[in-house]
Amino acid sequence: MAQIIDGSGLAKDIRCELRKELEQFMAAGHRAPHLTAIIVGEDPASQKYVTNKMNACKEIGISSETKVLPASTTQDELLQLISEQNSNPNVNGILVQLPVPEHMDERTICNAVCAEKDVDGFNEINVGRLALDMEGIIPATPQGIKAMLELSNIETFGRNAVVVGRSKNVSLPMAILLSSDGKNATNALDATVTICHRYTPPKELAKFCRQADIIVVAVGKPGLITKDMVKPGACVIDVGINRIKDEQTGNFRLVGDVDFDEVRQVAGHISPVPGGVGPMTVAMLMKNTIKAAKSQVAYRSD
Amino acid sequence: MAQIIDGSGLAKDIRCELRKELEQFMAAGHRAPHLTAIIVGEDPASQKYVTNKMNACKEIGISSETKVLPASTTQDELLQLISEQNSNPNVNGILVQLPVPEHMDERTICNAVCAEKDVDGFNEINVGRLALDMEGIIPATPQGIKAMLELSNIETFGRNAVVVGRSKNVSLPMAILLSSDGKNATNALDATVTICHRYTPPKELAKFCRQADIIVVAVGKPGLITKDMVKPGACVIDVGINRIKDEQTGNFRLVGDVDFDEVRQVAGHISPVPGGVGPMTVAMLMKNTIKAAKSQVAYRSD
Repeated sequence: MAQIIDGSGLAKDIRCELRKELEQFMAAGHRAPHLTAIIVGEDPASQKYVTNKMNACKEIGISSETKVLPASTTQDELLQLISEQNSNPNVNGILVQLPVPEHMDERTICNAVCAEKDVDGFNEINVGRLALDMEGIIPATPQGIKAMLELSNIETFGRNAVVVGRSKNVSLPMAILLSSDGKNATNALDATVTICHRYTPPKELAKFCRQADIIVVAVGKPGLITKDMVKPGACVIDVGINRIKDEQTGNFRLVGDVDFDEVRQVAGHISPVPGGVGPMTVAMLMKNTIKAAKSQVAYRSD
Repeated sequence: MAQIIDGSGLAKDIRCELRKELEQFMAAGHRAPHLTAIIVGEDPASQKYVTNKMNACKEIGISSETKVLPASTTQDELLQLISEQNSNPNVNGILVQLPVPEHMDERTICNAVCAEKDVDGFNEINVGRLALDMEGIIPATPQGIKAMLELSNIETFGRNAVVVGRSKNVSLPMAILLSSDGKNATNALDATVTICHRYTPPKELAKFCRQADIIVVAVGKPGLITKDMVKPGACVIDVGINRIKDEQTGNFRLVGDVDFDEVRQVAGHISPVPGGVGPMTVAMLMKNTIKAAKSQVAYRSD
């Protein structure tokens, strides 16, 4: 029976360490880092995510503000707000909760947040830096998964990993972090990585998964990863968040992309949904905010 | 017996088309695009590469200049020269021939070339744009390999590809181009991609290669890819350039990373060394230079 990777517990420990780190930073005479979250429209899931992030800020001691804009906001108005936050020296981190409304170009928005305050790591410059194994800001979800693997003592060096999905915010940076050189600035994981996606034939997906020591799945399809696709002892990280109706109770509940009850019988480690990757993502966003604040202080004192 | 992908012949056709494209561009009243190549030190291989590139410029009608700096040039002096070229409106493309001397930081140099004139596609912004499937400048070698696959009618959609190596100039952009979504700006290839590297155990490397419909190898190890590692009918693209001594004649000759004579017996398509990827790389550098010049003209007339 697989060991369950307790993302909630690990994230709590990380938040506790970040709180101490922040206390030291402020004891050295610096003000608390400030994170501005921007949310456009009234998507309930987005509101929940932002609330979780703001609660984590509060717990750690990061100053924060949520700017809620109506869904009718124009792209230019949003860009103007981002620009003000970019040039405001009291703001250290900026996040725009995705998705933005359909009349906006998500990529334009992500690139508008200046690289130094881009705590989501979605700006093209931070993406480039990650791809080049350079110091920069790494997207929170893949960074959180890396921490989960490390804290669970999962060996990755020279092992086979599969990333299912090819999203630019999770899967691609995950694949880069898994496959790159551990001796460079990102301390990457030196695994052999296969990127599977919607056009990978199901038979091939199953084969690559069965060969993998680590499987990271982030596609949004409940039950995609089944027991027969997992090598005994493999580590399975589930990034999916799917809201499904429980046939018995009629209530909705969250499930991932992995058939958890089945797969846990063969996997060596498995992350649950909820309580797995989600809280780790929030913790890493906090880590990125503190990192951004520290590097802005260092830059100003140059 | 494998069909040989004639990189020299394909590149000649592409240069011919680029020449026509350039004639039209100039007939519309624009001056010839100008490429500045910078070479630091006296590495004979680097000199040869730059000469090949300058000859291609001449054939196509691109104006070019090679600036040769002594190996003792400081990094600041090189950065100063790059900065001058960045701000010179008569220069459309800049390439710094790699490797730079050991007292310089290659990454700092690559990032110093402004993204708009970075015809090598090595600047962090262009790397980020490629990773995000955005319009930008794509490194010449992976772009040349993509053209080879397309011009040879090699199906990639949903097929298995292996990239052997994880260099930032060739392998990583190749893996991104192979795996990304064909419907986005980079017209990527929608394959399932496995990235193997120095820490992939040899047995695993052989297994992944045998599962592959397309193998791209770029590591610099003669004879790494042998017949038993190749699925009958697969397409094998050899990026390696290794100078080895011929035991019979005592002369040096260039070979790739593939055991060509053996592998051609089982592969469906194979690219030779020399005459495969090399000339395609040069042709794509020319394409990037013309693209850069055109987008600079468009930008100025906005």
